[in-house]
This record gives sequence, structure tokens and C-alpha cells, in this order.
Amino acid sequence: MTLEASVVGGSGFTGGELLRLLSGHPEFAVTQATSRSYDGKTVGSVHPNLRGLDLRFSDPTDLDSVDVLFAATPHGVSMEQIDEFEDAADTVVDLSADFRLSQESQYDEWYDGHVCPEYLEKSEYALPEINRENLPGADLIAAGGCNATATILGLKPLFDADILSGDEQVVVDVKVGSSEGGAGGGEASSHPERSGIVRPYAPTGHRHEAEIEEFLGLSVSFTVHAVDMTRGAAATCHVFPDGPVSKGDLWGAYRESYEDEPFMRMVAGGSGVYRYPEPKAVAGSNFGEVGFEVDPGNKRLVVFSAIDNMMKGSAGQAVHAANVALGFEETAGLDFAGLHPVGAP
Amino acid sequence: MTLEASVVGGSGFTGGELLRLLSGHPEFAVTQATSRSYDGKTVGSVHPNLRGLDLRFSDPTDLDSVDVLFAATPHGVSMEQIDEFEDAADTVVDLSADFRLSQESQYDEWYDGHVCPEYLEKSEYALPEINRENLPGADLIAAGGCNATATILGLKPLFDADILSGDEQVVVDVKVGSSEGGAGGGEASSHPERSGIVRPYAPTGHRHEAEIEEFLGLSVSFTVHAVDMTRGAAATCHVFPDGPVSKGDLWGAYRESYEDEPFMRMVAGGSGVYRYPEPKAVAGSNFGEVGFEVDPGNKRLVVFSAIDNMMKGSAGQAVHAANVALGFEETAGLDFAGLHPVGAP
Amino acid sequence: MTLEASVVGGSGFTGGELLRLLSGHPEFAVTQATSRSYDGKTVGSVHPNLRGLDLRFSDPTDLDSVDVLFAATPHGVSMEQIDEFEDAADTVVDLSADFRLSQESQYDEWYDGHVCPEYLEKSEYALPEINRENLPGADLIAAGGCNATATILGLKPLFDADILSGDEQVVVDVKVGSSEGGAGGGEASSHPERSGIVRPYAPTGHRHEAEIEEFLGLSVSFTVHAVDMTRGAAATCHVFPDGPVSKGDLWGAYRESYEDEPFMRMVAGGSGVYRYPEPKAVAGSNFGEVGFEVDPGNKRLVVFSAIDNMMKGSAGQAVHAANVALGFEETAGLDFAGLHPVGAP
Amino acid sequence: MTLEASVVGGSGFTGGELLRLLSGHPEFAVTQATSRSYDGKTVGSVHPNLRGLDLRFSDPTDLDSVDVLFAATPHGVSMEQIDEFEDAADTVVDLSADFRLSQESQYDEWYDGHVCPEYLEKSEYALPEINRENLPGADLIAAGGCNATATILGLKPLFDADILSGDEQVVVDVKVGSSEGGAGGGEASSHPERSGIVRPYAPTGHRHEAEIEEFLGLSVSFTVHAVDMTRGAAATCHVFPDGPVSKGDLWGAYRESYEDEPFMRMVAGGSGVYRYPEPKAVAGSNFGEVGFEVDPGNKRLVVFSAIDNMMKGSAGQAVHAANVALGFEETAGLDFAGLHPVGAP
Repeated sequence: MTLEASVVGGSGFTGGELLRLLSGHPEFAVTQATSRSYDGKTVGSVHPNLRGLDLRFSDPTDLDSVDVLFAATPHGVSMEQIDEFEDAADTVVDLSADFRLSQESQYDEWYDGHVCPEYLEKSEYALPEINRENLPGADLIAAGGCNATATILGLKPLFDADILSGDEQVVVDVKVGSSEGGAGGGEASSHPERSGIVRPYAPTGHRHEAEIEEFLGLSVSFTVHAVDMTRGAAATCHVFPDGPVSKGDLWGAYRESYEDEPFMRMVAGGSGVYRYPEPKAVAGSNFGEVGFEVDPGNKRLVVFSAIDNMMKGSAGQAVHAANVALGFEETAGLDFAGLHPVGAP
Repeated sequence: MTLEASVVGGSGFTGGELLRLLSGHPEFAVTQATSRSYDGKTVGSVHPNLRGLDLRFSDPTDLDSVDVLFAATPHGVSMEQIDEFEDAADTVVDLSADFRLSQESQYDEWYDGHVCPEYLEKSEYALPEINRENLPGADLIAAGGCNATATILGLKPLFDADILSGDEQVVVDVKVGSSEGGAGGGEASSHPERSGIVRPYAPTGHRHEAEIEEFLGLSVSFTVHAVDMTRGAAATCHVFPDGPVSKGDLWGAYRESYEDEPFMRMVAGGSGVYRYPEPKAVAGSNFGEVGFEVDPGNKRLVVFSAIDNMMKGSAGQAVHAANVALGFEETAGLDFAGLHPVGAP
Repeated sequence: MTLEASVVGGSGFTGGELLRLLSGHPEFAVTQATSRSYDGKTVGSVHPNLRGLDLRFSDPTDLDSVDVLFAATPHGVSMEQIDEFEDAADTVVDLSADFRLSQESQYDEWYDGHVCPEYLEKSEYALPEINRENLPGADLIAAGGCNATATILGLKPLFDADILSGDEQVVVDVKVGSSEGGAGGGEASSHPERSGIVRPYAPTGHRHEAEIEEFLGLSVSFTVHAVDMTRGAAATCHVFPDGPVSKGDLWGAYRESYEDEPFMRMVAGGSGVYRYPEPKAVAGSNFGEVGFEVDPGNKRLVVFSAIDNMMKGSAGQAVHAANVALGFEETAGLDFAGLHPVGAP
Repeated sequence: MTLEASVVGGSGFTGGELLRLLSGHPEFAVTQATSRSYDGKTVGSVHPNLRGLDLRFSDPTDLDSVDVLFAATPHGVSMEQIDEFEDAADTVVDLSADFRLSQESQYDEWYDGHVCPEYLEKSEYALPEINRENLPGADLIAAGGCNATATILGLKPLFDADILSGDEQVVVDVKVGSSEGGAGGGEASSHPERSGIVRPYAPTGHRHEAEIEEFLGLSVSFTVHAVDMTRGAAATCHVFPDGPVSKGDLWGAYRESYEDEPFMRMVAGGSGVYRYPEPKAVAGSNFGEVGFEVDPGNKRLVVFSAIDNMMKGSAGQAVHAANVALGFEETAGLDFAGLHPVGAP
């Protein structure tokens, strides 16, 4: 028996990914997708890959009762509507930042405050590789953010293996695709201005620093660049551990963390064209890739982490979390392998 | 009970797509993938999206017995090895041009002749939307070529509706991605030379003219351009029918042909960003899109047809044909919807 | 002694190209650039390549007196302001469509009418390779449109050589870059939706048909596709002449027309990567390339024509025309050769 | 009176840029361009932007006597042929790494040794913004490497202003285009595999570390990624100074170093789309851009530096150095402003 699911904010990019994933998911039936702008239009008129889907957007002010509601709204919307979401569904999975952090003070510092801080304690952050044990039975789940997910997946094994403790110098230089800017456009994201770029778009002060600090206990020097792809987030972590670390140590640490993970792959050298993690290799899929190299001369480790920001960094992560929360097979609905070759992912 | 399948030529692009599709197919188990160059290497070392696949390339001179053998070798190889293929498998699905045409003389004219013309009569061309009735029980299947498939899918409904008879002027201007050049490289396909191009690569005399002429009975003025995408073939057909044709006539013709087809979508105007067929909208999927517009001032119809050249134009078409030939669900293993957005497909 | 020049509409893409060309031109000094939106800002804050230019945008309602005024405003603006332009400058070069056609009825048919049709007779259309003799002394010049220019340059030699008379079937299939949409953005031109596309954006009825018909005397079957580049227009002309034409005939025709032209290059076969005209080969320059091939089986000629839509198709054409009109060296300020390699042009 | 110049290795990408620059240079006449592979072919058959140039490649074994010889050969070739080069020309400008470093031991460590170490003392490294005073009269000039140039230009002002002394932690994360791989191709640089990537191609141990260490006295943690552009190198320098540094301090330091430099631009915040250095903004030009931001929470400075790797990072740098060495105007032949917009640069 399938569960009923709805997507609030279904016309955005992550909303479209949710609709794609849920409509092919063996345990869910999508019964509603909302969109203020496209109320009454078919889902396929916005998301051309879903032209075969028999579903029209409806107005977000009239939410159906469902088993699970996925909210893919801009930051700030879910905190305003959380009571409606909770009324409409037994389980709410939110893809925004509104319920990821645990302290109101963090929202004061990094966002524009919070209107319902009492929910922060109740919500479960979801990055299943890191904290899947918290998810079963959760009724408000906050899927981890894209750039934070890439970073945390890259660095967490170093903490688990006691290579990092949290006091070390770590620089994270992230490269992201244009879908992180969301649907809609604007001059900076117009094709003539946006194509072929290496553009510093968050030189300092990116909000995901807060998420990384909370879940790794590490203050990272974080910088985000926009590059010419649509999907993908690639985090290059320059890590300066206290003592010497060998490549064998790293293989041990990452294997210990990830060798049984259904969505994690280790890529660190080897032959062929794809020797380290790359967004292209995971585009469209829920896989994450991590790899690493040692730079003894500079007492540095370089860790590479690549995800599809709209999948493992958003919609895929949300479905993965829902699978864990509801006791389904973890990979249900998430078995697409990705493509080779693919152009700009 | 699953059937055993092998892929000969598994390290090329279409070979990789076959391995992706077959490894996720409910009715097949892949037992062998051959590659002369990568003998002994894992499939994932060449196709990074398949890193999770527990399979290594083996030498093509030692073929396992299987139920179905898919041959994804360059043109000219299958005709040399067809006896080995037939010995190894009950059903052979060939993705090259070697068995698509019915007459040896066509191979003399368009290719470098044929070494086993006796097979031409036995083989079944496969473009299921056009001739699925020929496929059940076939033991040698020749999957239609990418650019020919795009063109035939675009024009066939006009013949079925008696809008075209074969004597009319038809110009087909095709735009294709870089995967049509295959894996390996070369100066013209190197990234600095190949990116951002509109390059006439077959101004006249493209071999798919033969295929189109055989299956439509139409001599087309055919020109192919390379543009900046990896996957995709978009055929723009400029058609000059004998009498007036309305847009309603066209809707009628295309609906008649395609409304029950599981992989065909009609897109002809409407609202939103994607108003006509585009390769982006079908990238990675087995869908084909057709659309049209009427230009009364020039007594012209413009028909647009878009496919993923590696899917509906090759590996997807081969799996679709095998599904029909073997009595499986037509869409088995081919349910991926495609992505939105996707960069260069 | 340099002439004073101004650019009205200097913050758009063609306005920026004019400012680049004029600021490096030996005969002009730019004294004013207007922009309603960026009044008071430096030119370099909008056009980053011009950061070194000591010039700020001023309000378009207060035009300085200059020798030559270049108007790079959207279609419809120049016809409203032509009296102001004429008051401000001895010579006006307009880059919009407002003064290209000779008959008011054409504006009624293809545009939204015309508010000052009396100027249509006075203005000179400018495509110097075709009609440079009309330009000296002209005081209102209408630079030819990008897609029309590519088409006319490709086909004109066939008329001059009596290979075409105007009654033949000609299909022109154009591929253009994203700069044709202008600065500003919008959903369809946002990077995620616009990258990697082959998108039919003017299936039929493109306004440049009027320009082509007026200056070639030919009704063309015209279709425009958007592809993944920023600059460039490539016209593929499928031509069906009445009698047989050899490749030698074509070389003769094109050499006759273009061998003394400073900006025209013939590229038709030969060796290397670039065997036919390509927008990449002329990006940033004022060069145009034409090439051709014969398809005897279909009684067809295929003519390829490539320009940079913002240069030979707009700002470069305007400066070229001004050079001719004012008696300067034709190539003055237009000597940039283009780049190799260049990514997406 | 112009000087005669030759280009050895004229068919590669940087050789083509040299030919473009020198053929438009007021002080030079190009009399020879050599190429082993294209001996006898026109320069325009390889570099399509130079189709108008009346020059054919000649064999590199027969060098003409010239005033200045530019060598654009792969690393290791110039050291083998330096005596021939010196015989042929009064001034040799080498674009390879063969004469950049001062110690034979550095070549043993970072390259495959050196065959004529006696020349290392005689050669002058050339990065004019850093050491133009060494160049007048030099007869063997080694133009600085692309990634090293981007890095040194970004960091040198911090040393000059005593913000850095050489003992601090500095991470340099570089993003480069596909032209750095040179002409020719190969599987990893084929369009299907190379487009849309974020690929770690030198995770550690890039040879330019040696150049940076020699000329800055700083050991940098250096990592290079390949991204989807053709031209461009963007260095993001994460710098951890000993004490607090304000943005005002940085403006002071960079203005002090660069405000009179003809090719350097400072871009650090402000309005519009281009707020920090970007390769797009300098593509095709000899400009370099630097910018910066302060991250007080992490006691970090972030410095951005962007150049066109084939211009300021190679051919442009070589011509700039020759201009200084020979007493010409520094900007002679280097006045192209770049383009806006441009696709992938």
C-alpha cells in the first residue's frame, strides 16, 4: 500500500526533482503539487521531463491531507507555514534551511531570525550517512543543504578516525552549478553573463558555514564559486591535520565510514579519465563521491567531495531521509545510476 | 526468470548506455561486457556512473553463451563477426549500420560494401514506433540509426496521413551532440576546438540518407551540424506538401500515429520555456518529441523532432526492440524520465 | 582630427560593443553614452571589459551634440526619438529595425506599424558588401539585422552570378547565440534553461524575412534555432537552383563577389578542423565567412554563412557603415582578428 | 623600422596567440612560423582567426635569422635547442618552463632535470609587474607560467605591504580552462568527457609551485581544477596573515602595487554582475584582475586573481616582456580590451 505524498513548491527546480523521484517511487503516490504561479497548469508544462505525468499544480493555500508532505519552498516560507504543513501531513520533510539549525541565535546570526524557534528542537536534521539513527519516526525532517552536505560528507570520516578534532585549519573551496540560484532568472544568471564563468559568488560568510559548524564542530574557511554547469556541487577541502597522515590512513578512514553506504563511492587516483570525485559522474543520481590526496610538503590533506546539489544535496537527500524515517528500503526510488557521458551536468 | 545478456563493445558510449540500461532491467542479467582496450578493467573505470557495477570487461574473442547479445561495435565489425555472435546468442541486437539496409547495393553506394549480404534479408530493422510488428521472434535485429530515427519519427505520420507521398521537397537540417563522434577523441573533438560550435560536419551525403530513403521512400536533402551538447539529435524538417495543410491537420496526423505510443510526446506551441521538441527535454531518457508549425506564406510545414542519440537513437532503441522481440513490457528498463534542468545534455 | 561620437543605449550588449569599437577607433572620440538604468554609473560597471574606460552613462533625455550618434536601442525606440537624434548629430546610425525597410506597409505587416514613415525613404540600409555605394554622405543609416545579414551575405553572390533569380525554393535554417535575446534575462534565457539547447525559437514568421525579401527579392523559408553559444549567427541555406551548378561555378560566383572584400572569407572544404564557416572562427571580429557544397543527388546547393551577430550583425556593421559614409578607411577600428581557440563564442 | 620576429612552435595554441599578437604589433613583422606537423600549410589552416595572414609554416630545423625569436614549444624542447635559437636571434623569448627557475636542482626536483643549466643564470624570468626592471637588454627571457602568474599577481602586493612575510599558511585553489592542455586532444580532453567538469587535475604537486616559491619566497598549498572554459586561469588564494588586516589595508596594498600598471585592474565588491575577478572579463586580453575580501571570523583573507592563461599567462606576457626588453611602449600590440558578453571564454 503506497503512502500519499505532496510537494509544496513544486514548480521550482528541487520541487521538480521531488516530483520526478516520488512519481517513480514504489512506496509513494503523489497526490498534490502546489505552485502559486502555475496554479492549474500541468506539471509537464514547467518540467518538460515530466510531460507524461497526469498532475496539475494547485494553489498552496489549500493543502490536501497526505501521509508525507515535502516542502521545497524558499528559505523563510516553511517557518511561516509549518503549522499548516503539520496539520496536513503526519510527516513533513522540509528542504529549506528553516529547521536545520538547533538554536534561534544561529538564525539571528546567519539568517533573518526565526518565527517559530520552538520547532527547532523538534526537527531532525537529515544527512543519513551522518545521522540516520535519528530519523525513524521523526515527524519534522530538515534535509541538509547542498554545499554543507558536500563538505560534511568529505570531512566527517576524518573526525570519526580522529584525524581531525575541530581545532585544525580547514579551507573549503566549493564550485557549484547554476541550479543553486533556483528557477526564475535575473541578470547575473542570464546565459550570456553566466556561461563559462568562474565567479566568486560567496567569497566569505556563506550561510552553510553554520550548518557545517553545528554538525562537524568545525569552523571552516568557506568560499563558493559559480562555474559552468547546471547541477553539481564540488567541495575541495584543504585540511591541515596536527600530525602526519598517510594515504593508507585515509583509505582506512573513508572505508570505515563509507564502505557499506549505498550511495557513497570512494575515488582516489586509479586509472582512466575520472580519477577523483566529479559532479559529472553523479549528475542526476543520489550518489556522492569522495576522494583524497596527501601533500606531505605542505602537511596538507586534500579531500574532494562531489554531489548533485539537487539530488544528494536536496531532493534525493529528502527522499532518502523519508525512506529511513518511514522504514522503507533506503534506496527506494533512488536507483538511477547517472549518465556517461553527460555534457554540463 | 531473467535472461542472460552480453554487450560486445562495452567500453564505447553506446556500450556504456546498454550496460546501464540492462543492469537496471527487470528481465535481463548482464553476464559479459567485452572490450579489447580495457580487458580486465572494471566497467566503472571507464563509465564512472557504473562504478557500483560488479563487472569487468573481457576480451571480445571469447564470447559467453547468452540469451541475447547486444553488439555496440563500430560499423563494419558486426558484419565480420556475425557468425560468432549468432553462435553465442539466440537473439542478436546490433546497434551498427551493418544490417539496417536490405540491399547489398546500398552498402556499395553508401558504405564500403558488405561481407555477408545473405544476412541482410534475415535481419529486422528496428524502430518500434514504425515497425514493431516485425520484431517478435526476430533473431537478428538492427537498431535504427540516431539521425535517421529522429528524421523518420518526425516525418512518418505525414506519410500515414497522406500529407506526403514521397515526391515532395523535404530538407532535413540536423543538429547533433559530440557523443555521435564516439569515445576516444581526436583534434576536431577536443574540448577547445569542439565547444561552442555550430559546425557543418556532414554538409551533404550523410549515410543515414540511405536509411531514411529505404524506410520512408523519400529522398531527403540532408545536412548535419555539430553543436555544443554531448547527447542529442534534433531534426528540423522543412516540408513542402502539394496542397494546403492546417495545424489542425497536423495535430490529427501526429495524434493518430503517436497518441498511444509509450515513448512519444507531441509538443507544438503552448506555454512555458519548452514549446517545441528539444534534446534537453529528453536527455538520458528513451522519449522522443515531435512538434510542428505551419508556414502558409511559404507553403511549408516545419517539423521538429528531438531524441537522445544514445537512447532512442541507439541503446534505448535496442533495448526497446529487444523488449518487443522477446515479449516483455515495452517500457521495461526504460522508465527514466530525464532531468530538469540539465546543462548541456 | 577625431569626430565626436555618442552611443544611445550604451548599457545593452550591442551598445557595449559600439563603445568598445569606438573607443579604440582612430577617427572617433566617444563623448557620451546613455543609459536610463545605469545613469551615473561607469561604463565598466556594466561592461567589465571596458573597466579602463573613463566614461559614465548619462541620461538619454539630454543628448550632447556630436558628429555621429549611434543608436543601440530596442526596436521602436528610435522611431520615437529620431527627431532628437537628428538634432543632436550630423549623422545617425541606427542599429534597430526601425529604418531598415522602405515601406510603411512592411512595418504594418511585420512590426507594430511605424510612427514616422516619412523617414523610411531618407534612410539608407547598410550592409556594405551589398550596397556600400549608397552610404557616402548618408545622414540616417540603418545597419542591417544579424540574421538577415548572415543570410544575405550567403545568398547574394548566387543572384549576382545568375544562379538564383528569386523564384527558387530556398530554406534558411539559422542557429543563433544567446546574446540575440539582449541583456536582462528572463526565465527562458536563464542559464539552467538556456544552456546546451537546440531550441526552435522562431519556427516561422521571423521578422528578418522582410529584410531578406526586400534586399534579395526572394521569399525564404526561414527558421531560427537558439543553440549554446553567446555570440554568433550561422545560416545554412538549402538552395534549389533551376539547373545544374558545379562547385567550380560556386567558387567563381563567390570569388567574384568577395575576393576583394576586406571582411569576407571563403571557406569551403580544405583540411583541418575548420572546413566550413563557423561562428567560433569569427567571434569578436567583423569578419564574415561563407562556404558551400553541392548535393547533385538532390539538385541542391548548401551554403553556409557565419558571423558574430554583435559585430558583423550589428555593432561592427554599424561602424563599418559609418567608415564608408564618412570616407574613412573601411577597416578602421575593426582590425581585431578574433581568437583561437575560444570556448563558446 | 619594424623588427623581424619568428615563432617556433607556431601551430600550438600559444603559438597561434603569438602570431595573432605579433602580426598586429606596430613594431614587429613576423617572418617565420615553424611547425613540424603543418610544414607548408598556411597559418590560417590551423588558426582559423588568422586566415587573412599571408604566412605558411616552415620546418623548425631551418630557422631564419631574426631580431626576436619567440619559442612556444613544449617543455623540454627549448633547452635542447637553445643554441640554435640564440644563433638565429638577438633576443629569445621562451614561453616554456625551461629557463624560468634559477637552480638546476629545482629542475631535478620538479621536472626531468636540465640539459644546459649554464643558461639558468643568464635567463631573465619575466612577469613585468613584478620585475620589469630586469628586462631591458635581456637576451634570453623566460615568460612566467600561467598558474604561477595568476598566483604571484594575486599575492605579491601582500608581501610588498608586509602583510605576508613567507611563513604564513596560504592555500591556492586554481580553476583553469581546457587550453592549458594544449592542442591535440586525447580522451580526457575530448568534448564529451571534458565539458561541464569540475575535475581535480593537479590535486598536489603542480610544477608551478616551484616558480611561486622562487619568486614569492612562499610555499603554497596548491591545487588545480579543470573547469568548463577554454581560456582562463582563476586563482583563489586563502591567506592566513599573522595579525588583523582590514579591507582598507588591502585596498591600500593593491593600489600601491597596481594603480599605475597598464594591465592590472582591481575589482573587489561594488555593484553589477562582475564584482570580483573573473576570467570571462579578461578573455582574449592581456589584462589581469585582482580582488579580495576579508573573513575576520576565520582570520582569513581571500584573494581572487584572474587572467587569460594564453595571454597574460603566456603569449601576452611574452610580448609584454619583449616590449619592455626592447624599449617599446609596454602596451604595444596588446590593446585589445576583451569582449562582453563572451560565452565560455
